Amino acid sequence: MAKKKSFVKKSERKISKALSKSVAKKEKEGPKEIAARIKEVARGIVKDIESGRNPRFKTKQRGRGNVLFDEKLGIIKLGDKDTTRTFLNIAHARKFLQTMLVMSKTYEYLTNNKTASIREVYYELKHTIGNTKENTFEDQRESDACIVDLEHSIDTIREKLNVHANPKGTLYGDITLVDRQHHNDTFNCLKLGRGGWSIMSRIEPHEIEIKKVNAKYVLVIETSAMYERLVEEDFARKNKAILVGTGGQAARGTRRLIHRLHFEHKLPVYVFTDGDPYGWYIYSVIKQGSMALAAHSRLLACPEAKYIGMTLEDVEDYGLQNVTEKMKPGDIKRAKELLAYEWFKNKPWQKELKKALQLKIRIEQQALANKSLEFVAKEYLPKKIKNREFLP
Amino acid sequence: MAKKKSFVKKSERKISKALSKSVAKKEKEGPKEIAARIKEVARGIVKDIESGRNPRFKTKQRGRGNVLFDEKLGIIKLGDKDTTRTFLNIAHARKFLQTMLVMSKTYEYLTNNKTASIREVYYELKHTIGNTKENTFEDQRESDACIVDLEHSIDTIREKLNVHANPKGTLYGDITLVDRQHHNDTFNCLKLGRGGWSIMSRIEPHEIEIKKVNAKYVLVIETSAMYERLVEEDFARKNKAILVGTGGQAARGTRRLIHRLHFEHKLPVYVFTDGDPYGWYIYSVIKQGSMALAAHSRLLACPEAKYIGMTLEDVEDYGLQNVTEKMKPGDIKRAKELLAYEWFKNKPWQKELKKALQLKIRIEQQALANKSLEFVAKEYLPKKIKNREFLP
Repeated sequence: MAKKKSFVKKSERKISKALSKSVAKKEKEGPKEIAARIKEVARGIVKDIESGRNPRFKTKQRGRGNVLFDEKLGIIKLGDKDTTRTFLNIAHARKFLQTMLVMSKTYEYLTNNKTASIREVYYELKHTIGNTKENTFEDQRESDACIVDLEHSIDTIREKLNVHANPKGTLYGDITLVDRQHHNDTFNCLKLGRGGWSIMSRIEPHEIEIKKVNAKYVLVIETSAMYERLVEEDFARKNKAILVGTGGQAARGTRRLIHRLHFEHKLPVYVFTDGDPYGWYIYSVIKQGSMALAAHSRLLACPEAKYIGMTLEDVEDYGLQNVTEKMKPGDIKRAKELLAYEWFKNKPWQKELKKALQLKIRIEQQALANKSLEFVAKEYLPKKIKNREFLP
Repeated sequence: MAKKKSFVKKSERKISKALSKSVAKKEKEGPKEIAARIKEVARGIVKDIESGRNPRFKTKQRGRGNVLFDEKLGIIKLGDKDTTRTFLNIAHARKFLQTMLVMSKTYEYLTNNKTASIREVYYELKHTIGNTKENTFEDQRESDACIVDLEHSIDTIREKLNVHANPKGTLYGDITLVDRQHHNDTFNCLKLGRGGWSIMSRIEPHEIEIKKVNAKYVLVIETSAMYERLVEEDFARKNKAILVGTGGQAARGTRRLIHRLHFEHKLPVYVFTDGDPYGWYIYSVIKQGSMALAAHSRLLACPEAKYIGMTLEDVEDYGLQNVTEKMKPGDIKRAKELLAYEWFKNKPWQKELKKALQLKIRIEQQALANKSLEFVAKEYLPKKIKNREFLP
């Protein structure tokens, strides 16, 4: 059994403070500020036209070549490389037009207090242009790309543009939320039976206020079934925990909620996933962010988050050899990739990943049921938290 | 535009009444009754052993050859063909043992007031037998199959065995639920902000009480994004509707909830899906049940449910030609299959399916955003409901 270790080092506190400081202004930006920035970009384009210049739209490069790991902030982020699109350029004209449509539409949402899914944005904007046979969009991928361009151009996230993807994730625990845009509904997520609250796509401060939290930490859980197990065992009440079920990879709304619970309410975040490359990646996305959304880590990541399990040490400690599964070739490939990521380059994770590659096994959260259904809630988690047996 | 039609015929009321009558007793069965039936089966097996007979376990045949459409009840159901497994038979012995393990475990759940996911059942029961190298289970599919055998043997659903699969689906509207197994939590699903209640895996009467419903009908919605749209437009309040978001194919818990809202609270059920074979199938599963779960239709189906859209008539009526999508080969194959199902063999559906196959197009719910974001809530749905423009 691992000795008692404290992973919250001074250096980590510093990282978290730095990120908190860097994000405070961003976090406060509401629809007014964002709409104003869209208008500013639009004005620039109008000026270009009026002064006979080729209209231009500037956004950020998002390829791997412009993604970096910021050790000071503990997040994956984008570098400074820009890319410019001009209207009078056959290769750019169509996309330029599309970007303008998306800009104008999101401006409309923000000023009219409407929100839309990215699929609705596509359908709302799709039409045939004048007397041509040319459609504004042929595929949602085209409008999605424009939304991403716009996010990066005005340095915000789509949720702050009142645009969102599908919701996923569930919340349970002694936390009181207020939906400020919907009858000021005020509700406590400890009082919703065992179902819990279905986390919205957008958890922006001007929409959802976290009014009160009575908890010692946030426990993020990968599988719906383990989330249900812990609710059933009354884990949240008995341990003063907020439970967040991600149902696989955490959706953006869920990540925003976790981020805000950590930064607004200073709650430690513990992540509980299957012990396999998919689970480890879910953890790393919650902690440092992802390469695909590198520009948004500041608003989504939790650099101080800790990994609580499942680990390969658990397999030995609790005699779970019988309920491990063999790694598939895809798992092995993925584990090797994780091994090379900068943010997994610390001793405990290198050891864990190498062990997995050597044993070629994976272990699921629910394998703990092999001890007993209550084991995870009564022994496994409380012990790990008490002894601070985490991976960093 | 279609003329005003009334699809609720006397014959349909009769069907619904017949089903309601046939299911009333089943519905009332709680853990005690189910545990007693498990014990009865177990006693039979003990008797076999004591009197030197080969122990036998009887369940139902579930192949297509034993599935039929019951026109009187309006549901897909299982026929009477049985199948028997005996212990002293090399081909059956392993499965016989596994079935006994699952029987004993679910009996334990029921008498100790515990519930478990089907994955947990697998992990709880997996172990190496005595001094052999033989495991009780090698794969979750083995324990899943035993659960299905048991459901059919004692004529109930797994939820009433306190066993369940993953939850999915969201509830919104003026409905008050009580979780009788969890602090008697009492909550109104109109007051949970725009997120709504995350529907549990098990919505059995002894667990979840539907205390009060203030609504005129239940609107079941296929996509999460359309569900969010209708919540955002305050459709539930303005139309006295209960909104159920299925997020694709409806999970069993969600189907149980819809079923109970219909039968316990006499609410009409309207189903709103994409206009494509996947959406039509989602509808038919909610209405008549499915072949895979034929034995459980009585507790899951809603034979009086109506299909509200999307239809190919909508495409013409609202000029949505521009935002249809081409059917893929898989869609075409599936549409042809639906055309041949007995429960789609009525004039309106045959017409709809043939039209789809002729035009080879599909239309998504969110394509209505092409009119405006509010269109679906302000015009499309209220008009269809007012004029009773449904497919049967």
